[in-house]
Amino acid sequence: MKKRIGFIGLEVMGKPMAKNLMKAGYALCVNDIVKEPVKELVELGAKKGETAKEVGEKSDVVITMVPTSKEVKEVYLNEDGVLTGIKEESIVIDMSTIEPTVSQEIAATALKKNIEMLDAPVSGGQLGAIEGTLTIMVGGKEEIFKECKEIFEAMGKNIYYCGPIGSGEISKITNNLVAAICMQATCEGMVLGIKAGVQPKVLFEIMSKSSAQNWALSTYMPRKAFKGDFEPGFMVDLMYKDLGLANNLAAIHNVPILLGSAVRQIYEWARATGKGKKDFSAILSLLEEIVGVKARLEGA
Amino acid sequence: MKKRIGFIGLEVMGKPMAKNLMKAGYALCVNDIVKEPVKELVELGAKKGETAKEVGEKSDVVITMVPTSKEVKEVYLNEDGVLTGIKEESIVIDMSTIEPTVSQEIAATALKKNIEMLDAPVSGGQLGAIEGTLTIMVGGKEEIFKECKEIFEAMGKNIYYCGPIGSGEISKITNNLVAAICMQATCEGMVLGIKAGVQPKVLFEIMSKSSAQNWALSTYMPRKAFKGDFEPGFMVDLMYKDLGLANNLAAIHNVPILLGSAVRQIYEWARATGKGKKDFSAILSLLEEIVGVKARLEGA
Repeated sequence: MKKRIGFIGLEVMGKPMAKNLMKAGYALCVNDIVKEPVKELVELGAKKGETAKEVGEKSDVVITMVPTSKEVKEVYLNEDGVLTGIKEESIVIDMSTIEPTVSQEIAATALKKNIEMLDAPVSGGQLGAIEGTLTIMVGGKEEIFKECKEIFEAMGKNIYYCGPIGSGEISKITNNLVAAICMQATCEGMVLGIKAGVQPKVLFEIMSKSSAQNWALSTYMPRKAFKGDFEPGFMVDLMYKDLGLANNLAAIHNVPILLGSAVRQIYEWARATGKGKKDFSAILSLLEEIVGVKARLEGA
Repeated sequence: MKKRIGFIGLEVMGKPMAKNLMKAGYALCVNDIVKEPVKELVELGAKKGETAKEVGEKSDVVITMVPTSKEVKEVYLNEDGVLTGIKEESIVIDMSTIEPTVSQEIAATALKKNIEMLDAPVSGGQLGAIEGTLTIMVGGKEEIFKECKEIFEAMGKNIYYCGPIGSGEISKITNNLVAAICMQATCEGMVLGIKAGVQPKVLFEIMSKSSAQNWALSTYMPRKAFKGDFEPGFMVDLMYKDLGLANNLAAIHNVPILLGSAVRQIYEWARATGKGKKDFSAILSLLEEIVGVKARLEGA
């Protein structure tokens, strides 16, 4: 029989993820501080849990998808939280992007009640959540991961087992750190080359077939930033949050990340100039405005 | 009839490039301050020019491949330099990686003698030079580029016309700037993730299929650095030189390159710790040594 799933956090990402679970035949019990998405899912057949505790009581597996470490702690550890309500030998899965140390801390508390936890942050944005094509990076015990794999497959396409609890978060944070730096590299290179007199299309063609090739340059920006489209996508504010997590992780482990530290300041700068809600490729427009050129590809 | 080609600068890159021209049927007149490679090419049938001037006198097209702006200036502008010897309506092609402003300066001097110039730096390293698979980025007048395309095709595989004189240099410098930053991004990400507890192979698999994907990570390092092989390849000293050119170019055009400036200091650091003659991916070993982990892929 399919597990009964509790789902807490029905925002931009959580709502479509919950819907995909229902499509795959799971019975859901849902909760969110905002009423509208709860109502929408109840109309589709989900039960409503008045509190996180009640969601826990009515579920075999509870999934959480909330903004930050703070909300994750509240949802699990508060008096009316998941861990108060949920039965022994259940499973909790936090899919939020948060500090790996918080995942580890909650997992340790859960284990005392004989409850297993996975951390399973995602990438792929709202579109990936809607289409069920998310990349999901999972940390925790491998047998628990295997038990839950079918659940992940209802929401995502590339499902990775990353290692012990916290490893999903570490993998995602690391990936986004590298992605942010490569994005800025691409912006600096394009704007410099164009300002020095080379056509955007020439630079693009050379770099995308040479050692400068990277996902931001050759896959992401031709569809968006290089057309002048800076709407999210994946917001500056969210990349800034993930770079904060990366810099905290680096400090905990005593790893100097020279460019990772600098690139966070560039996202800080983007936020300071009102670009927080723009796509994370909007750091291109920041440089364009300063330097007075535009990196646009016709017909790319 | 095939043009007579002069070739000055027969080091690691120049010698195999000159050999490929001879294989393609061009008559060569060669010169270098080092005797050994000159002797080698003369034995293969090339003429020897005692000076750059003499090479100019005996050639329809002169190609130069020397270390820095300084040598390029000397070879062209000295009293016994190419521009003193070469006939009117000849063509000179500098394939060295140098300041674009120097290319422009020499081109202007050449034009006064009715001599056309192209700048045509390459990438692809010694292996690309030997196999004739170099990427060649060409600046100058388009009709002169077309006239010389067959010559480039004897040495390279991907030949790009980039725009007016200096554009080849700008394109190469820009590409290498982006490549260096993506390399460092990859090193920071891998070392951070590993130190925080995730297996190298897991990080590699996730990042190479996600938004962190870049050429250094997914193409270059699995063959070298991720196996613990830090032999060049493309030396730290050469990337440091190119990053110097990039930072100079940025200063001339008043373009702030925040990561480009920082990454040059990382290559400075690598040089300061005796890694100048290692492969440019040896900045990975720098971080590995500091942090006390190794980013090695078994069977990658």
